[in-house]
Amino acid sequence: MVVVMSTDVTEAEITEVVDVVRAVGGDAFVSRGVSRTIIGLVGDVAAFGMLNLHNRSGVAEVVRISVPYKLVSRENHPERSVVEVGGVPIGPDHLVLIAGPCAVETPEQTLAAALMAKSAGARLLRGGAFKPRTSPYAFQGLGEAGLRILADVRAETGMPVVTEVIDPESVELVASYADMLQVGTRNMQNFALLQAVGAARKPVLLKRGMSATIEEWLMAAEYIAQRGNLDIVLCERGIRTFERAVRNTLDISAVPIAQRLSHLPVIVDPSHSGGRRDLVLPLSRAAIAAGADGLIIDVHPEPGIALCDGDQALVDADLEELGVVTRDLAALMGRTPASATGRTAAEAAERVPEAAKSPT
Amino acid sequence: MVVVMSTDVTEAEITEVVDVVRAVGGDAFVSRGVSRTIIGLVGDVAAFGMLNLHNRSGVAEVVRISVPYKLVSRENHPERSVVEVGGVPIGPDHLVLIAGPCAVETPEQTLAAALMAKSAGARLLRGGAFKPRTSPYAFQGLGEAGLRILADVRAETGMPVVTEVIDPESVELVASYADMLQVGTRNMQNFALLQAVGAARKPVLLKRGMSATIEEWLMAAEYIAQRGNLDIVLCERGIRTFERAVRNTLDISAVPIAQRLSHLPVIVDPSHSGGRRDLVLPLSRAAIAAGADGLIIDVHPEPGIALCDGDQALVDADLEELGVVTRDLAALMGRTPASATGRTAAEAAERVPEAAKSPT
Amino acid sequence: MVVVMSTDVTEAEITEVVDVVRAVGGDAFVSRGVSRTIIGLVGDVAAFGMLNLHNRSGVAEVVRISVPYKLVSRENHPERSVVEVGGVPIGPDHLVLIAGPCAVETPEQTLAAALMAKSAGARLLRGGAFKPRTSPYAFQGLGEAGLRILADVRAETGMPVVTEVIDPESVELVASYADMLQVGTRNMQNFALLQAVGAARKPVLLKRGMSATIEEWLMAAEYIAQRGNLDIVLCERGIRTFERAVRNTLDISAVPIAQRLSHLPVIVDPSHSGGRRDLVLPLSRAAIAAGADGLIIDVHPEPGIALCDGDQALVDADLEELGVVTRDLAALMGRTPASATGRTAAEAAERVPEAAKSPT
Amino acid sequence: MVVVMSTDVTEAEITEVVDVVRAVGGDAFVSRGVSRTIIGLVGDVAAFGMLNLHNRSGVAEVVRISVPYKLVSRENHPERSVVEVGGVPIGPDHLVLIAGPCAVETPEQTLAAALMAKSAGARLLRGGAFKPRTSPYAFQGLGEAGLRILADVRAETGMPVVTEVIDPESVELVASYADMLQVGTRNMQNFALLQAVGAARKPVLLKRGMSATIEEWLMAAEYIAQRGNLDIVLCERGIRTFERAVRNTLDISAVPIAQRLSHLPVIVDPSHSGGRRDLVLPLSRAAIAAGADGLIIDVHPEPGIALCDGDQALVDADLEELGVVTRDLAALMGRTPASATGRTAAEAAERVPEAAKSPT
Repeated sequence: MVVVMSTDVTEAEITEVVDVVRAVGGDAFVSRGVSRTIIGLVGDVAAFGMLNLHNRSGVAEVVRISVPYKLVSRENHPERSVVEVGGVPIGPDHLVLIAGPCAVETPEQTLAAALMAKSAGARLLRGGAFKPRTSPYAFQGLGEAGLRILADVRAETGMPVVTEVIDPESVELVASYADMLQVGTRNMQNFALLQAVGAARKPVLLKRGMSATIEEWLMAAEYIAQRGNLDIVLCERGIRTFERAVRNTLDISAVPIAQRLSHLPVIVDPSHSGGRRDLVLPLSRAAIAAGADGLIIDVHPEPGIALCDGDQALVDADLEELGVVTRDLAALMGRTPASATGRTAAEAAERVPEAAKSPT
Repeated sequence: MVVVMSTDVTEAEITEVVDVVRAVGGDAFVSRGVSRTIIGLVGDVAAFGMLNLHNRSGVAEVVRISVPYKLVSRENHPERSVVEVGGVPIGPDHLVLIAGPCAVETPEQTLAAALMAKSAGARLLRGGAFKPRTSPYAFQGLGEAGLRILADVRAETGMPVVTEVIDPESVELVASYADMLQVGTRNMQNFALLQAVGAARKPVLLKRGMSATIEEWLMAAEYIAQRGNLDIVLCERGIRTFERAVRNTLDISAVPIAQRLSHLPVIVDPSHSGGRRDLVLPLSRAAIAAGADGLIIDVHPEPGIALCDGDQALVDADLEELGVVTRDLAALMGRTPASATGRTAAEAAERVPEAAKSPT
Repeated sequence: MVVVMSTDVTEAEITEVVDVVRAVGGDAFVSRGVSRTIIGLVGDVAAFGMLNLHNRSGVAEVVRISVPYKLVSRENHPERSVVEVGGVPIGPDHLVLIAGPCAVETPEQTLAAALMAKSAGARLLRGGAFKPRTSPYAFQGLGEAGLRILADVRAETGMPVVTEVIDPESVELVASYADMLQVGTRNMQNFALLQAVGAARKPVLLKRGMSATIEEWLMAAEYIAQRGNLDIVLCERGIRTFERAVRNTLDISAVPIAQRLSHLPVIVDPSHSGGRRDLVLPLSRAAIAAGADGLIIDVHPEPGIALCDGDQALVDADLEELGVVTRDLAALMGRTPASATGRTAAEAAERVPEAAKSPT
Repeated sequence: MVVVMSTDVTEAEITEVVDVVRAVGGDAFVSRGVSRTIIGLVGDVAAFGMLNLHNRSGVAEVVRISVPYKLVSRENHPERSVVEVGGVPIGPDHLVLIAGPCAVETPEQTLAAALMAKSAGARLLRGGAFKPRTSPYAFQGLGEAGLRILADVRAETGMPVVTEVIDPESVELVASYADMLQVGTRNMQNFALLQAVGAARKPVLLKRGMSATIEEWLMAAEYIAQRGNLDIVLCERGIRTFERAVRNTLDISAVPIAQRLSHLPVIVDPSHSGGRRDLVLPLSRAAIAAGADGLIIDVHPEPGIALCDGDQALVDADLEELGVVTRDLAALMGRTPASATGRTAAEAAERVPEAAKSPT
């Protein structure tokens, strides 16, 4: 950190900055130029952050040089991490495909979507039982009944389950069914929820907030990590811009940047980025080529009657092409498509959590 | 709602749209043009929303004509509402000033800030005990100890208390101390929290999400209203844009627009909008002149050592000028500055909730 | 300027930075910390900018401390400037109202709009003869015929004329008719045009680019100033954001910020900001209260048949209220409404440029 | 087009809309619902646009169904176009690589950059002689001397030249040297320039404005096309968002969307999008995978001393990898890398325009 003092700074103000820095265990080096005095700080950036140095009198500007997160930073952990979800690795050597319906509606619809997903190469099943919706009048998900359907479909297909959790209170419930907990874009800075999933001992899929900077996204991951859970996968899902042709603008640059700043895996959600079926394939290709560690995709057996986001769900030929794309591009990028290491449904079923063995 | 069918639509597809609309109790009128068929819908927009008509085959576009919220809409409630907070009215005839420290740090700092605020004309005390912070390493607030300090300062000054609640679990606790519950910008789409404050029987201050459209903001208010709580005050606090000279860009147009679309009062937070002390006065003036029903302002007795957002807190001369500005502009805008109707501290103390009479 | 060197910098790299800085007449002070070396630069920022120091090997970051413009900066010219347009002062003591039709359509429409504007207190007439339109199929303006109409209406009403110039080639022509040259939002970084108006010896109204930072806006003004023309008035007209309820988001904070960074007058265009008639009055009030030095407003005698932006043009009661608002708020802000110092039409007519005395 | 009338519309207002539509040669179909009357328009959208129907009394909303451009739209020209530049095809079957220095500085630097570019597979040479710079104090380019250098390097290497033109006046001069005229991001809505290049009979590379919607970008292309020049290549180069880790956010979705809406080729500039060397390769891969028809890349023999944007220029190993990436991904996407069809330098030299054979 570099503290730039104002042109009319006094000696007392300089001394005060040095003193408060040393009081929290840091060290401070004063450099006096002709018009400006600059103080370089060495030590714990988090401790310095608590000092609110930019508020102090005599301080013109504080320039951060290190990143403000630690546990998730690549600076402190140069090797890229692998996160295992129900035995499926997500990380630099593989390319994982997560697919399923936006919302769990019925057992039949969920199973059909899972089988479609699986045959396209997906190894993990996504599906929402608790749906955060902009409108209180929109379908809010089936709740625990939806979780039970997911567990049944996992037993049938062998696909571990990724599902969203929307408040701290239901983390335990959702974790008793799910293999991976998803934190959605609207909850990226729901700090109570981040802390709850941080304590939950299940891998977490952390979607980027729709207007979060990459740095804020990594700070949100740091909240989870701080509670002892480093099994975090970051998911870029589009940001809010002025462009109206798409629901969100996929920030493809975020993939290599987040991978450079953090050791965590980074996947992409091309379905929610564009919000349009015809963009899913081109954005999936772009994501893999940019180096993403995986994709999460909406599929639905009958998009026309989907209760949620049907206009972006893949079906039939498009889904088959996604499977082909994934395999070919993965190879070119030096990655094993996750499906190639395939476990059988039977193996998977053995790993189903207790609570999830629902009698329905 | 108007459903525009695609150029190659079939009769069966048209019939299907008409049928599903009628199945939910609506009515549908088909108009056949030379190249396009258009279907006008009459009935419950919320029910139509559940149909996901834009997913149906043969549908090119769905054009909404009514707003997607009801309870908070002005269409359904033309008269602008007044929300009372501990006896202080917020609404079209008054101009309320809410002020206090960003974070409660000590009893002394909080009392000093409250007295400063009061002498500038503030009738409500703001102060954060639970602080949602981007960094897990930043000061997170004193929690319940902070609530107790706020209650003590209310007893001393007669100022009802506005304080933030950051998760559903602590709503009851915070409501037992506070006169108004604040939902912060990062939680505007934390739907579990919205539902919890909707059930809490305390007025709610709903800050606009930093990248929420005005429509999404009103939908968030609708979540609260749906639980039976219509004592909602909207607060514009700046949106995220490309401009880097400010922390957020105050969207001053949102004040008249939200007042036109909704009957709820709309206030402005000029402190967090700009994030700079030198902008608080100009933005406060602008907000009142644009028709805001009040202001919420950060003050701190010693901004240089504030634990949170000290660089935007008002003090001394600026604060006095704010008092003058509020009075003069309020008069010009045909409003009574809330302080003019002033209750005494003694009267206020009588209204302090039980749980808040802390022994400290 | 502060140059932060990377952690693995070599002595040779440090020496090279010092040498290139000295080679352009600056001075450099090296401060060696435990982990970082920092070099403070003293001298001509523009010259340093040409060095592209951030490209040099061994350089981690370059932190600018001074602003990158000079002629328009307030640092170098603390007193706020007054720009005179046809005898009407724009600056800190007055509040100027500029009004007229978005586009000049006919002599009758232009005269009617001018008289409406004048009776509401406007002292300068706006009107577009050359219209930059997003669509090549939209009305592009009357060209020189429109300039002639403006000149005739000036002769009739005594109102000096502000009109847009859209390419370097027509600057001379437009300047021969106009009292002030407007550079529109889409041309804010049309550098050839900026240089041409800089050489034109007429006051310039420089609209902010719809996605320009305040700093870029001031850099654009610097281009004009560099050619010897410091009669520049800045105009905030809304920026592009994600919000869809308005055409542009008025950045009200830009008014006090630009006035703090630059000595140039700053006015606001509430018509094009919102793009909605019902926002013109609230945004006008907000602009004056935020400290704007004036307003530029669209008026039209029959908005329903306007060829350009009719849905934002004021007429009748709204326009009268604008006049009242301007007077009352101007007084409260310690400003003389420009109309109070009024010249007569006869006086104004005497000052009409030769070329403008068209025979039509 | 669909015109939605307001709830309190009168018969006279409906009749007026129908009449004005018919007056410009269109037809109008009135559909009366229970609460709303809707009028469907058939005919020339451009003509309807001139009517400004949204301004008319009784009109609530105008909903456009067709796109507002014609000549560049794919609706009217379903087959994707091929644009030839000095014999090099840009279009759906090839993948063109355009590379060279951001700014032409010296003959040696330009030749070195061109040879680097060529050996990486580039078939067209980019290089700026006229540079639009945010700061008037930054290097503005060598002007005609730069054009002469480019012509010499073309003669030497056989690479046709793409270079920027920044004002209408210099179009003729630049066109006498260049094989393709580039319109930069800041000039995308410089309509006088668009018309001038439209008349110039040279292919045009039209960069997207940094805050232009895709629709506005296509409207800008329509301006060029209207003057008779349909040899237009669109270039996505990043848009302005809140994210600060990059200079611009590459809008990768714009590639498939623009290709769907327009028949023109679409290429990507990964250098200016990110503004960071380490992003050029991942973004190049992403662009090709998303279906881009080519790339335009900054290279520089010594980025550390570049006068313009050196921190994003490729050199050495990165550049070689770009060549490999282009070839491998192009094959996977079913495209011929342009270099594979290679003309020799000698062949190219024969095609150099007269004016460009400079004696220097």
